[in-house]
Amino acid sequence: MIQVALCPSEIRRISATDLSGVTAVVFDILRATSSIITGLASGVEMIFPVGTVEAARNLKVNDADLLLAGERGGLPLQGFDLGNSPEEFEKIKGRRVVLTTTNGTVAIESMKGASKVLIGSLLNMDAVADYLFRHRPKSLLLVCAGTGDEFSLEDAIGAGALVARLADDGLSDAAVFVRSLYERVGEDVEEWLRQTKNGKLLQQIGKDADIKRCAQVSVFDVVGCLKGESVVRLAG
Amino acid sequence: MIQVALCPSEIRRISATDLSGVTAVVFDILRATSSIITGLASGVEMIFPVGTVEAARNLKVNDADLLLAGERGGLPLQGFDLGNSPEEFEKIKGRRVVLTTTNGTVAIESMKGASKVLIGSLLNMDAVADYLFRHRPKSLLLVCAGTGDEFSLEDAIGAGALVARLADDGLSDAAVFVRSLYERVGEDVEEWLRQTKNGKLLQQIGKDADIKRCAQVSVFDVVGCLKGESVVRLAG
Repeated sequence: MIQVALCPSEIRRISATDLSGVTAVVFDILRATSSIITGLASGVEMIFPVGTVEAARNLKVNDADLLLAGERGGLPLQGFDLGNSPEEFEKIKGRRVVLTTTNGTVAIESMKGASKVLIGSLLNMDAVADYLFRHRPKSLLLVCAGTGDEFSLEDAIGAGALVARLADDGLSDAAVFVRSLYERVGEDVEEWLRQTKNGKLLQQIGKDADIKRCAQVSVFDVVGCLKGESVVRLAG
Repeated sequence: MIQVALCPSEIRRISATDLSGVTAVVFDILRATSSIITGLASGVEMIFPVGTVEAARNLKVNDADLLLAGERGGLPLQGFDLGNSPEEFEKIKGRRVVLTTTNGTVAIESMKGASKVLIGSLLNMDAVADYLFRHRPKSLLLVCAGTGDEFSLEDAIGAGALVARLADDGLSDAAVFVRSLYERVGEDVEEWLRQTKNGKLLQQIGKDADIKRCAQVSVFDVVGCLKGESVVRLAG
C-alpha cells in the first residue's frame, strides 16, 4: 500500500504511530531535499538534517569541520556557512554538512521511527523508483513536507511523480490524488513550481535559478538514505 | 483567499484557530453532506449534525419527534430510524433529523467557530458557488471531511468542483491541488467516485445506488447552512 502524508499536521499524526516496517520517502522539493540530493550527487560526504537552528549550532561546537547550512522563511541564517540553495551544495565536495530548514529537515527527523527513510526529489526520481522497485517495501509512506503549517503543491508533484513510476494498484486515495496532479502537470514542472506559494517567494527573494534547478527530473542517479543521524548516498 | 483543509488532522488543527470571519464549506461527498442536501431539497425541516452516537440518542430522549439517522463504517446504527443514504432523506419531508456519521457531522461541528458554515456536495454545487459569488466572503475555507483519520478523494473532488467555479486568483496551493483534480476528473465523476476507498466500500455493502446519486452535479438549487445547532435551507 502507498500512503501519502499530504501536509504537516498529517506528518505529525503519522509520526506518532508505529512506523516499523515502513519505508518513508520525504519530499521538500523547494528546496531542502533537492539540495540534499544535489549535495550527495556532488560528493558531499554526509548531511545531518536537524529540526532547529540551535541543534545545528550545537553540533558545530563539538565538530568544527562541519559546515552549517539552512534557512528560515527562505532566508540565510546568521553565522551559517551556506543557505539552502542546491547550487551551494555543489561546491562542497567531501564535506559533512548540518542542514536545518523550516519543514524539510523537520519532516526527515520525524520519520526516524521508520525502517528506512529515503530522500525524495524530482532530481533523482528514477533512481528512487528503481530502488523501491528492487526492494519492494510492503508499506510505503510518501511525506510531503509542506511549508510552515501548510500543504505545499510542489511536494505533492514530487510524490505524484514517484507514484506514477510505481504500481497501479494498492494506492490510497491520497496516492491517487498526487498521481493525478503529476499527470496534470506533465512536462510543465518548472512552470507549475513557479506558481506555487514557495515558488513565488523564491522569485521575490531573487532565487529564481533555484526553481529551475529543482524542477529538473531524474538528472542524478543517486539515492539518499538516513543512516543513524545523517543522510548518506547509498551504493548503486 | 481560498484555503482547503485536506484531511481530518488538518481540520483538527484549523478548528483550533480563530475562525471568525471565515466562511467554511464542508464536503463529505460519500455520503453525509450529500444526504443532508438531498434532505433539504426534499423538504426536511432541519438536520442536527452531531459528532457522537450518544449525543444523537440524548437529543431524541428530549424530543421524541426527532428522527435518528447515521452510520458508523457505512453501516446502520441500532435503534436508529435511518442510515446515511441520500434516498432515505428523500422520504421524510417536514421532519427534523439528527444525523451522526464517522466524519461528516464531526467536520461540520468542528467548524462552529466560523462565521458561516455551508454544506457542500456535488448535488448543489452551482447553488453554493452562486451564493459565494453573491456574498464574496474574504476568507473561504473548504473542508474535506475524510474517512476516519484519512484523506478521502471524493471530498477533494467536491472542493475542486467549487474552486473551479470561483476565482482564478487568491488560491492557496491546496486550492490549486483540488482544482487540478476536478479538471482531471472532468465528466467522469461517477467512475472516479467508484474508485475511491469509500466508493469501493459502498459497493461491497450493496450501496452502489448511493454512489450514482452522490455523483450528480448541480441537480438541486439548495444552499444548506448551519444555524445554531441545525442545518437549514437558506431562502433563495
